[in-house]
Parts: sequence; C-alpha cells; structure tokens
Amino acid sequence: MKLDKLIGERFKERPSECVIDSHALMLRGGYMKYVGNGIFSSYTPLKKITKKIEQIIREEMDKIDGQEVMFPVVLPASLWQESGRYESVGNELVRFFDRNKNPHVLGMTHEEAAVQLVREYGQTYAKYPFMIYQIQTKFRDEPRPRGGLIRVREFTMKDAYSFHTSKEDLDQYFERCYKAYERIFSRVGIPETIAVTADSGMMGGKLSYEFIILTPVGEDSIAICESCDYNANMEAAESIVENIRDNISEILTLESTPNIKTIEDLCEFLNIKPEKTCKAVMYQRNSDDSYVLVFIRGDLDVNETKLANYLKCDVHPALIEEESETGLHAGYTGPYNLDNANGKITVLFDKSLENTNNLATGANKSEYHYTGLDISRDLKNINIEYYDFAKIITGGICPKCKKPLIKISKGIEVGHIFQLGTKYTEVMGMQYLDSDGQPHYPIMGCYGIGIGRLAASVCEAHHDDYGPVWPMPIAPWQVHLCAVRSDDEQVKNTADKLYSELMSNGIEVIYDDRNVSAGVMFSDADLLGVPLRVIISPRNIKENCCEIISRDKSFSVKEPIESGRDKIIEIVREMLNNFN
Amino acid sequence: MKLDKLIGERFKERPSECVIDSHALMLRGGYMKYVGNGIFSSYTPLKKITKKIEQIIREEMDKIDGQEVMFPVVLPASLWQESGRYESVGNELVRFFDRNKNPHVLGMTHEEAAVQLVREYGQTYAKYPFMIYQIQTKFRDEPRPRGGLIRVREFTMKDAYSFHTSKEDLDQYFERCYKAYERIFSRVGIPETIAVTADSGMMGGKLSYEFIILTPVGEDSIAICESCDYNANMEAAESIVENIRDNISEILTLESTPNIKTIEDLCEFLNIKPEKTCKAVMYQRNSDDSYVLVFIRGDLDVNETKLANYLKCDVHPALIEEESETGLHAGYTGPYNLDNANGKITVLFDKSLENTNNLATGANKSEYHYTGLDISRDLKNINIEYYDFAKIITGGICPKCKKPLIKISKGIEVGHIFQLGTKYTEVMGMQYLDSDGQPHYPIMGCYGIGIGRLAASVCEAHHDDYGPVWPMPIAPWQVHLCAVRSDDEQVKNTADKLYSELMSNGIEVIYDDRNVSAGVMFSDADLLGVPLRVIISPRNIKENCCEIISRDKSFSVKEPIESGRDKIIEIVREMLNNFN
Repeated sequence: MKLDKLIGERFKERPSECVIDSHALMLRGGYMKYVGNGIFSSYTPLKKITKKIEQIIREEMDKIDGQEVMFPVVLPASLWQESGRYESVGNELVRFFDRNKNPHVLGMTHEEAAVQLVREYGQTYAKYPFMIYQIQTKFRDEPRPRGGLIRVREFTMKDAYSFHTSKEDLDQYFERCYKAYERIFSRVGIPETIAVTADSGMMGGKLSYEFIILTPVGEDSIAICESCDYNANMEAAESIVENIRDNISEILTLESTPNIKTIEDLCEFLNIKPEKTCKAVMYQRNSDDSYVLVFIRGDLDVNETKLANYLKCDVHPALIEEESETGLHAGYTGPYNLDNANGKITVLFDKSLENTNNLATGANKSEYHYTGLDISRDLKNINIEYYDFAKIITGGICPKCKKPLIKISKGIEVGHIFQLGTKYTEVMGMQYLDSDGQPHYPIMGCYGIGIGRLAASVCEAHHDDYGPVWPMPIAPWQVHLCAVRSDDEQVKNTADKLYSELMSNGIEVIYDDRNVSAGVMFSDADLLGVPLRVIISPRNIKENCCEIISRDKSFSVKEPIESGRDKIIEIVREMLNNFN
Repeated sequence: MKLDKLIGERFKERPSECVIDSHALMLRGGYMKYVGNGIFSSYTPLKKITKKIEQIIREEMDKIDGQEVMFPVVLPASLWQESGRYESVGNELVRFFDRNKNPHVLGMTHEEAAVQLVREYGQTYAKYPFMIYQIQTKFRDEPRPRGGLIRVREFTMKDAYSFHTSKEDLDQYFERCYKAYERIFSRVGIPETIAVTADSGMMGGKLSYEFIILTPVGEDSIAICESCDYNANMEAAESIVENIRDNISEILTLESTPNIKTIEDLCEFLNIKPEKTCKAVMYQRNSDDSYVLVFIRGDLDVNETKLANYLKCDVHPALIEEESETGLHAGYTGPYNLDNANGKITVLFDKSLENTNNLATGANKSEYHYTGLDISRDLKNINIEYYDFAKIITGGICPKCKKPLIKISKGIEVGHIFQLGTKYTEVMGMQYLDSDGQPHYPIMGCYGIGIGRLAASVCEAHHDDYGPVWPMPIAPWQVHLCAVRSDDEQVKNTADKLYSELMSNGIEVIYDDRNVSAGVMFSDADLLGVPLRVIISPRNIKENCCEIISRDKSFSVKEPIESGRDKIIEIVREMLNNFN
C-alpha cells in the first residue's frame, strides 16, 4: 500500500511514560494507541504483525493435532463456581452482573470453558488424547499494567488445552508441544528464546516451562548456569548451599544488641558475615492470615513461591509489631527459646541452616541476640525438617553441574506450558471410561502464548535507536520501497513500475512516494521496521540501479534496475527461509 | 483430517429448545455448544466456517481501501461518556467497575473507539477519505437471546467506520461499500441477499441499508413490491394510502356505545369497516414519559420507528387509565372536542386521515363515540399537519411503482450499512482543517456484519432435514471422503491413497474411515454439510470407480478410480468459482 494512506501517526519524541523501548517505538511508529489503563487499540501495522504471528501459531498447533475452537470472552459465573475459582481468584478476575442480575466474569483463562466444551465428548478412552486451542481476547485486571504490550489488561492469547488418559501420554504430548513452541519462536524471529523450568517440582509436582526472551527490561528473573545448560525461573530454581560448619562450636551467649534489628546492623555490630547469622522472616497465609515463620541463613532471601508451594497456600510478608499477637519481638526473633504462641505459628527452617554452628540470631527478647548458636546442639529438642525455601543467587551452585556459576538474568515470558493434572477435570466432574469400563479423570496440559506480548518482545529483542527490526516472517510488509525525489519523473515511473511488479508477484510492499525529504522517508521506514528497503533516487537512476538495504544493516547491494525485481523477490524468499 | 478425531458430538434428536432449523442443526452437527444465555463456544467446524467468512470479508474490505485495526473489547466509560452514550444506552450496554473502581463498558459497537483512534490522524483534509475496520468480539446484553447464533449476547462482528470531508464523498464511498457487501454475500454463498432501505429518510435523513436473507423464521419484516424492485424494512417503508372520500358527508352524531372500546367492537356494533374509523393510539416518550397521541385510520397500525424518528425520541405504548392524568378516556378518545390537558399531549395525525369523512371515532366521553366525522369540516379549527406514521401492509401501495402489490416477508438482517453523519465527530471534538484552514467535523459512515449470524443465516437459507448444505467457499471442508466398509483392505487402501493425494493437492478433506455402517457415515456427513462427498465402497471398487455426489443432490457421478483425484479437484474448483 501507499505510505501516505497509512492511518496512524509517526513521531520522533520518546513519550515520557515509556520505560521500555518496544513501548516507545510502537507508539512512535503508529502501531498502537492508548485507550485506557492497560488497554490499547492497534493500527494496521501491528494488526498485520499479530495476524502473521497468529497464523504461524495456528500452523504449529495444527501440526501437533490441535483443533481450533472458540470460547466466549464473557462466561457465566456458574462455570467458575464449578471450579471454585470464582471465589478463590482475586481482583484480577472481572466480575459483573448482567441485566437479569446473573453474575458473569471476563475470561482471563479458559480451563473451565475447555472442560465444559469437551466434557461429554471425552467420555470414552478411545477419544483420547486430544487438544483444543483458541486465539481470543482475554481480560485480566492487572494491578499495574506497564511496558506497553508487555503487561496489559486486555490481550489476545493463544491458549491450548490437551486431555490425556495417562501421565506418560501427557508427557509425550508435552514434549511435542515443547518442540512446537520452539518452532513458533524460531519462526517469528526469536530463536534465541530459552525454555526455563518454571516450577521446582518440589511437591512431586507437575512439569512447567516458561519460554523466555532474555532482556534487561524483563520482569522475570532467570537463573542460568554459565557452565552447563541449566536454567530455571528464579522462582523455581533449587537453591543449593554448602553449609560449612566451624570445627569448634562456641558457647551460646546472650548479647545486648540495643537498637540492632537488621542482619546488616547485626553483622556490623558483631563484626561477622551474614553467612554466620540465622535470620527470621515472617509471613502470613493469604487464606486465614495465620503466621508462618521461616528461619534462613542471613545472606539468603526467602523465595515466596517455594514457600507457597510448600504450604499449598499463597502468603504475604507479615508485619511483626513490637507487642504483637504472636508474642514475637520484631528484629529479635530466633529459633532458640522461641515461644510459639501455643503452636499457632508454623515454624520452618531453610536447608541453608542444616548442621550449621556459631550463628548469631535473635534472642526472642527485645534488644538482645544470641551468638554461638549451634543448630544441632541447641535445637535438638525440637524436631526440625529442612526444606529449600531460599532464592538462588548469582554465584550460587548450579543444581545440575554443581559448579558455583549461576547467573541471574532478566527476561520476558513469551510462552508458558504446564501440566495441569486432574485439577479441573476432578472438580468439574469430567470422566472417561477406560477399556475395562472403569471411570477416570482425564489429565490435562495447558499451553499459552500472548500474541501482543510476543510482538512487543520481538521488538524489544530486535530494534535499534530508530525503530524495530521486524523479522521477515512477521513484518507488516516485506519490502519498503522509497521513491526519493518522487517529483523526478524517472524516479516516479521506475518506482511505480517496480511497486506494481513486486505486488503482482505477491510481495507485500509499503510504497513511499511522498514528496518529502529522504531524511523524513528513512526515519519513517526505520519506525516501520520493514526488513528490506529498496531505494529509487535520481542518483540511483543515473547509475541505472536500485539500492537494496536490509533494515538491520547487515547488507546493502546495488542491483541493475532491470534485474531489481527478481533480486528483491529472491532476497525476500531467502529472508523468509532463514526462519523456517 | 480424520473424522474419528473430530472433537464434538453429532446426534439425531432435535433439541427441544430450538425454534429454528439452523440452531438445531448447528447443535446436532457439533458446531457449537451452549455456555450461558446467548453465549456459545464454537467447535472446529464452525471455527473453520467463520474463519473463511472473515477472510472473504477482509479481502473485500481491503479492496475498498479499508485498513484493518483492532479496538478493545473493554472500554473505559470515559469514552462513552464523551459521546453521551454511557448515559443514553440502556441495559444492553454492560457496565462494570475495575479493581480501582473506575467504570468500564463492554464494547457493543465501536464508533467512539474509532473516533478516538483517528482523531489526531485526521486533522487535515489531505488524509481523507479513509476507512478502518476490525473483526472483533462484541457483547450486547440482549433481553431475549434466541435462535442460536441469530440473536446472541456475545458475537464476533466486522465493523467498519469511514471518514469523509463531504456528503458527496461519503455517498460515493457508501456505494462502493454497498457493492462490496453484495460481493461478500455472493461469495459466502447467499447471492439471494437483498438490500432494503432501513431508514425512511423522513427527517431529511441519512441513508441506511439492511442486507436481508428472506426466510420465514426471520425477525425483520420486509416490505417488497411484487411488481417493481422496491423493498424496504417495514420500519422504514413509506405507507401510501388512498384516502377515498364519500360524496356526501353525514352529520356528526353522538352515539351511545356501551362497553365498546376497540375498533373491532366498534365496527361490529356500527356495522362499518375499520377504514371508516379514526383510531387513537397513545405513547409516552422514553425521555420524560410525556404523552403522544396519534390518530390513524382504524385499519392501520402505528410504526413506532417512524414516530420515534419524527419525535427524535424513543417511545413506548402508554396505558391510559380510566381516570388518567391525561383526562382521556381509554377506548373513547377522538380528535373532536379533545381536551388536550393544557397542551401537554403532543397530538399527531397520520396521512391516512387526510381529507376523510364519515368516520366513527371516540367522543372523549366514556361509553360514547361519534359517527359522521368529517376531518376537514369538523376539525377545521385545529391546524393539522399530516405525517406518515403508519405501518405498511400487505396489499399496500408501492411507494415506487404505486401499484397495490406490497407483500410483507420475514427476513434475517445479515449486514447493515449506514451514514452516521457528524454525530460522533461533533460530540467527540474530531475536526480537520480544509484547504483554507477552516475547521470542520468529518462525516462518518458505518458498516457492520455479524460473522456468527451470517454463518447461521447461510445454514438457515441452505439446508435440508438432514443438515446444512454449506457453499463451497465457506464449507468447513471441501470434500467429505467416506470409506464405506473400511475393514475391506481394498476400500481402505484406495481411500487412504485418495485422501493423501487430495490433501497434497491442497484440497481440504474430512476423511471418514471409521468402521461404521454407511447409514451412520452418511448422516454424519449430512450434518457436517460438506458440499462434495466421495464414496469408496466394495461395490464401487468392483466397478473400479468412486462416487462423487454433491451435498445438495444436484449431481452424482461415477468416476474411474484412476481419474478420480483429478475429477474431484476440478469439481471443487468449479464449485468455488461459482461464487466469485
């Protein structure tokens, strides 16, 4: 199409509200427009990009025997009441009443709808396995939408649900889907996407992978081993700690530590390292606000996901008041002589404390700490089990190769696959009869990709200061044709002819024949990020050639005008093939 | 794909809740599933149909220079407050509050969002005209969803909005869009769709066309002339009445008519025809409940749309109590000696009364009517203007050719195009500067097609007792291949080979190789409605041929197995071309 007809505005100034580049570039390039908090409209260039992404996803889902369906955006609350999520999910679930005062929700995920759709179909084992997917609008009332399309409230998502009669069958399908995801990310132009373990499996649990684009602006923290191929979401990464025990255990001694409440202050006051302290961290269960006290080595932090997984309940940090109902003393809590309020507090120990000695820790008395705590000696009257509640740290030990080469990187999650098990089929009463006529609950897998976030992530991963560098398979157009000095008749005629020839050969061309300066033209082209640019200018005409330049500046060729068309078609095909 | 892998259930019994055939067949054929009132999920066959419809619509919208965009489903209320519709639209607009207590709506149409998207872009005349469209989920909280996909609450719609600097330019574009709509309906397989005038234009108003599929189960009433090409939505059709005046006007006479309150009773009591009565019909404005009294010839009914257009306000029928605040007497209201409650009642006269005489009418006194009313003689002291408020009737006069050959048919609206004028650009402050630097409000056009309703309408228009007969361009598959007696090795091998050959030639095949009876196979095939069926059976094998049968039974051929593949491909292409 002609650029001068393209609806949307392009501008130079980075909008002040933009924290990340993809957000700024997609506003500056006329890709999208703010409508409300976390809610955007898309202009044609973005719509073209997302349609291509959707088509690639469809092809890959179909290849693994997925069947495209469509669930509603608006769901009757009764469906979410069946699963219990109408009550258990927080404010991110939009609830409203229709004209007849019946409660409804806006679908933020569709496990319930998926089970509802196939509950009758899947009544006999012979129908299994099967997978359904949709590409549909979702709404999640995020507390803090940010980063443009990276974290929005309304988004388009491909969500898929598979159903199986055995864990082995799910595992097999999971592997196929994992590979399909790898192909999807390669084909949309980000083969550098890595798959990271997203759930520690601590609870004998279910497999889960996040597909991550590493970028400093990402929201997720990923633990990556610099020696082997281990990587995991920090929330899931096992923390391995060498607990070095001193040869000689000191005597447990009460020390006056006036106004010393933090590990930092304590280490300075006693001139010791944080590794030789035992820290108390207090949480409350979200369900009933009951208290959970975690002891952990002072240099480490608690990973709340691991804690929640262990407790099977979400938690939030508790504020311990001086005179609190727990009987604890904020800043002075320790495991020795702990008055556990009649057992009302769940007390847990991180593995980092196992078999350690000569620790400083709170004395459960204001303004006092103990030194010389020997966990095995001094706490032998309580029955301690140690679990992994710690956040993995840079320089930490790799759980796989055991080298202390863990590095923490930031990344954006562009996809997520996980094994749901029978959670939804059980609560919603979906059963099949096996070959012996025995009823069972099917096992589910679940596979998501956010389309808009994926587009933004590709932009985040592939851009320069001037605009996105779209990979050929998802670029809004394949060729950006610039007629520089379109008032020159020869330039105009040559460019017009090339435009119509490329179009009739099925090449997607955005054609800029405006009578504007080359500077304006090229900065617009940079913002549109079309991977191949073709320039017809008076100077080129003199040399009887057209210039063919890649947006990423990796190549630039001059081709005789006569063979220009064929050369361009050839390069477009090559650039498409690079991603297959 | 293989039929035995197709998710969804097919069954014989017509579900009792189904009033119309398309609803029943789309449930029986595994096209969709009820989720909630007016809310459905789609299985793969329907998804395939709607994707093809969407693609045809896209192509036609792109041909008339439309640019595909995407608006949000969830819109901040502020946008609808700008246009005033947040307050003015009734319960069909879903309103809810987000976690921060900010009001939002679910988009049921996107005029506001369209203006918001292009308000800055369209600031100069040189950008005009332009058109944007989207294909997106909408939610309209209909009071009575019914007819399966014909009237739902959640639906996918193509909505388009064009912007112009002059009425002439809009008219020109409107004509292009009208033709695009005709092409769309032809291409999806319902060239019989007719365009009907949807707005009388009575108010010097704006053009509006509905595209209608005539079917007895339709919700819309269409006035069609059996002589010329006139047709219009009954709501918009001009009612032309020959007012035949008797030569001699009788004397106005008060008659005792005890307990006679309806025109029917009155005609029987006086032994006259309804044409010789003057009926009073009372409405109230929705805005302030003020009264509107319409006098109309007794054989005609008031068209509320015309009345609302005239009043520029929606109305509802009023209940006149015996001792009402209006001072009127229910059943005995007439235009002579009317006490108009100090002018508080708006009194209107339909054209059917102009220059009539010898009418019976209410006497504004309980249990009494007048006979012998001569409108011109007896009401000459009030200044009457006559307007067209009447519903057109079967046998009525065609407004175009003037013959009394109007027929009222039922139909389903599958598309609607209308000229919006500057309604939204004015209230939302969208302006452009003309070539002289003068500001103006752009003029808008608006163009809608409901995707699901269109699919259901095609089914309604093209089905038999056994299932839908999908037109080739939108059929879920192009060929339904049946291997009858797939336990016969030769049958199975021949069918397998044909399946893979057709697939590798780009033909979309659903392949039934289940070991079930031919009866089960064919009734499933009927429900899936694939336009071309190919049968491989032991008997066919003996004759070395395959049977190729069209779903609509218009043809059936036996083709040698060797040339079967090519013949099928040829027929598919022909059947596709029939709709282009």
